[in-house]
Amino acid sequence: MRQAGRYMPEYRKLREQHSLLDLCHTPELAAQVTLQPVERLGVDAAIVFADILLPFEPLGLGLSFAAGEGPHIANPLSRQADVERLPRVDPEADLGYVLEAVRLARAALPADIPLIGFAGAPFTLASYAIEGGSTRTFTRTKTLMYQAPDTWHLLLNKLAELVGGYLAAQARAGAQALQLFDSWVGSLSPQDYRTYVQPHSRRALALATEAGVPVIHFGTGTAAFLEDFAAAGGDVIGVDWRIPLDDAWRRIGEAHAVQGNLDPAALLAPAPERDRQVRDILTRAGGRPGHIFNLGHGVLPETDVGAVRAVVDLVHGR
Amino acid sequence: MRQAGRYMPEYRKLREQHSLLDLCHTPELAAQVTLQPVERLGVDAAIVFADILLPFEPLGLGLSFAAGEGPHIANPLSRQADVERLPRVDPEADLGYVLEAVRLARAALPADIPLIGFAGAPFTLASYAIEGGSTRTFTRTKTLMYQAPDTWHLLLNKLAELVGGYLAAQARAGAQALQLFDSWVGSLSPQDYRTYVQPHSRRALALATEAGVPVIHFGTGTAAFLEDFAAAGGDVIGVDWRIPLDDAWRRIGEAHAVQGNLDPAALLAPAPERDRQVRDILTRAGGRPGHIFNLGHGVLPETDVGAVRAVVDLVHGR
Repeated sequence: MRQAGRYMPEYRKLREQHSLLDLCHTPELAAQVTLQPVERLGVDAAIVFADILLPFEPLGLGLSFAAGEGPHIANPLSRQADVERLPRVDPEADLGYVLEAVRLARAALPADIPLIGFAGAPFTLASYAIEGGSTRTFTRTKTLMYQAPDTWHLLLNKLAELVGGYLAAQARAGAQALQLFDSWVGSLSPQDYRTYVQPHSRRALALATEAGVPVIHFGTGTAAFLEDFAAAGGDVIGVDWRIPLDDAWRRIGEAHAVQGNLDPAALLAPAPERDRQVRDILTRAGGRPGHIFNLGHGVLPETDVGAVRAVVDLVHGR
Repeated sequence: MRQAGRYMPEYRKLREQHSLLDLCHTPELAAQVTLQPVERLGVDAAIVFADILLPFEPLGLGLSFAAGEGPHIANPLSRQADVERLPRVDPEADLGYVLEAVRLARAALPADIPLIGFAGAPFTLASYAIEGGSTRTFTRTKTLMYQAPDTWHLLLNKLAELVGGYLAAQARAGAQALQLFDSWVGSLSPQDYRTYVQPHSRRALALATEAGVPVIHFGTGTAAFLEDFAAAGGDVIGVDWRIPLDDAWRRIGEAHAVQGNLDPAALLAPAPERDRQVRDILTRAGGRPGHIFNLGHGVLPETDVGAVRAVVDLVHGR
């Protein structure tokens, strides 16, 4: 998960002076934010500070973030011509500021703290590009998917090539692991996942895997098609709290590592309940190698940073 | 699912002159809207036109609907005292207008078209009452659940008694089946469902079952804890499109009937893709008795009414 965020006082302080996009666009600041959770929380890895929607800028989609409102896409995609017109994105030239943030963060991090690069998965990116922002129903996304499957596959193919190359570029810049976020894939039926999404996730993950570092494939709401989700690729499968970790791992198979899966809301619970949930996950992981303890999704802004630190300490102390 | 809605021209016409709450509060109009889908779509059953949040009015929570914005709760619950203060709701006295709509709709419907009554499940109602409206993260809901479990259980117990009695009253007024909607229960981990929600759903369903008519227990995102969801009660288990119907039915067991599970977005697809998905569900149901064909959630406002009619005809023609 993106570790830095509004729950951290030092991050909020930076945000008083810089917009989210300013932070992302300024490698020195992005690297600084990348390091904040390592210092504050004592986590075992850092994840570069960026946003999954940054590739929308070189794609010409017009990205902005209104305060407290989430992303806004000025030029959403709706027609075949829109998708055909999308320019080819060169991560080195067009997203070089993220790669520079990776280099700076890698140089500043302690040698024993790996740095994770990340990108949004083709489906999740497509949903924002088509809806123009967040959605609960994915109506426009699924309408295009069903009504214009050729346009859909062209779009997802372009996004897969883009994010696969972008992830590989982050590895070349110094990221020692890569994560593909398919946050909204759980809105799909298992059949639609296989037909419309899995081939493109597979392509993106294959391109990322060529970089030679471990790849984490994360999704939420994947309980009904976890086998297919895992089959798309990734050395590590990230799952949310909606499925018990041991059930998930058994279904994914021991050839994969697993990441997860504390409900971010558990960080809002009193310590005994929070710690009980943490211990339950560790018990379900069974002490086997190949479990990355993590939340099942991002830290909620309302979270007390001390609660996050306490969870890190509890996991380490075990 | 609630069958009438913005996708129907005759419903939109009524809404030009009446607010959603006006329609609900006026039994003659609510009964009229209840009949619209039967006439327009040729469905096998009608569901009374109402809203799951209507009980918030006698509870003193202050319910309103802003245009296109979903529900707003003026007095959301946050403290033990708020919950203790909630008045006991008498469905006959406090929601009599719904019961009158049931009576009028029953009297107006053809004898071979059963009428379904419904209510929101304790968890889904609690989430609105605590958040003050819709939410993507259920942050306040889960915070109260974890921080103040006594308050939580008191609230859910009160809601269970309320909706259980309300459902039974609808059966006495003429509803020949009852449905409990737990639309947002899929936001919970399986363990939290068992601990914080299942006992209260069980109580509500037990009270409804005493009325002596079939009870449908509907939820979305339940793939990871479907067995526990079914064990809470209900003769029929409603599932969304996120799980294949045959998988769901096998896990629920043949002692239960099953309802579902077309993705509402499939109604936006071209006819061949839409019909393929409908046939796939019918095939998975295997022609056995005990399958109620339905959507996995409500009809999207963008839906063409002809597409809904075509699905009804396809299901009937098979």
